[in-house]
Amino acid sequence: MSLIDEINFDAHGLLPAIAQDVVSKRVLMMAWMNEEAVRQTMATGFAHYYSRSRKKQWKKGETSGHVQKIVDMYLDCDGDTLLLKIEQTGVACHTNRESCFYKQRQGDAWIIIEEPIE
Amino acid sequence: MSLIDEINFDAHGLLPAIAQDVVSKRVLMMAWMNEEAVRQTMATGFAHYYSRSRKKQWKKGETSGHVQKIVDMYLDCDGDTLLLKIEQTGVACHTNRESCFYKQRQGDAWIIIEEPIE
Repeated sequence: MSLIDEINFDAHGLLPAIAQDVVSKRVLMMAWMNEEAVRQTMATGFAHYYSRSRKKQWKKGETSGHVQKIVDMYLDCDGDTLLLKIEQTGVACHTNRESCFYKQRQGDAWIIIEEPIE
Repeated sequence: MSLIDEINFDAHGLLPAIAQDVVSKRVLMMAWMNEEAVRQTMATGFAHYYSRSRKKQWKKGETSGHVQKIVDMYLDCDGDTLLLKIEQTGVACHTNRESCFYKQRQGDAWIIIEEPIE
């Protein structure tokens, strides 16, 4: 599959994948993919990642139901980062927030600007 | 600086930083920061990164003039990825494209969907 050949995985066989909401354009999360996750994502149309901490494949939303339907995929100039434009079911963050990027720098502190959804 | 203490750098002392255009909301690039780059970015208000290939600090735009003015910075739930909302001068990509993510998956190929600016 030439799609895979153009990807430059790192020394651990991984690359970062950025998930962006296709409607709001909000950046929701960043997670890692190995070759298998890329193939699973392309084959199924839903985001799959590789968990470095759990050392296993992971379909986003497999337990929470918060799946990510792929609308478009982009590879960057160096071939070492993916951008996923997705339709997010539910929330992207495991803290039950819409985005994982909910801590904003304000002066000398990271301030939580978004509360978990009830 | 407590801002730094909350960041979980990886085993190489790095973390990914995603640069997003604050106006268009387009994701422009992903690059790496070490602690010094985070401090330089916060101190100057302009994005600084660490080049893994050149093994050196790097102010974005230092040679091209294509600097990135920081509007907002966000840290994710795990503290291991930054999101920068920026005002981009010129183009973000070294190929002279607005974004580094100019190769779109179309079927079995990555198709270049954006030409370099003259």
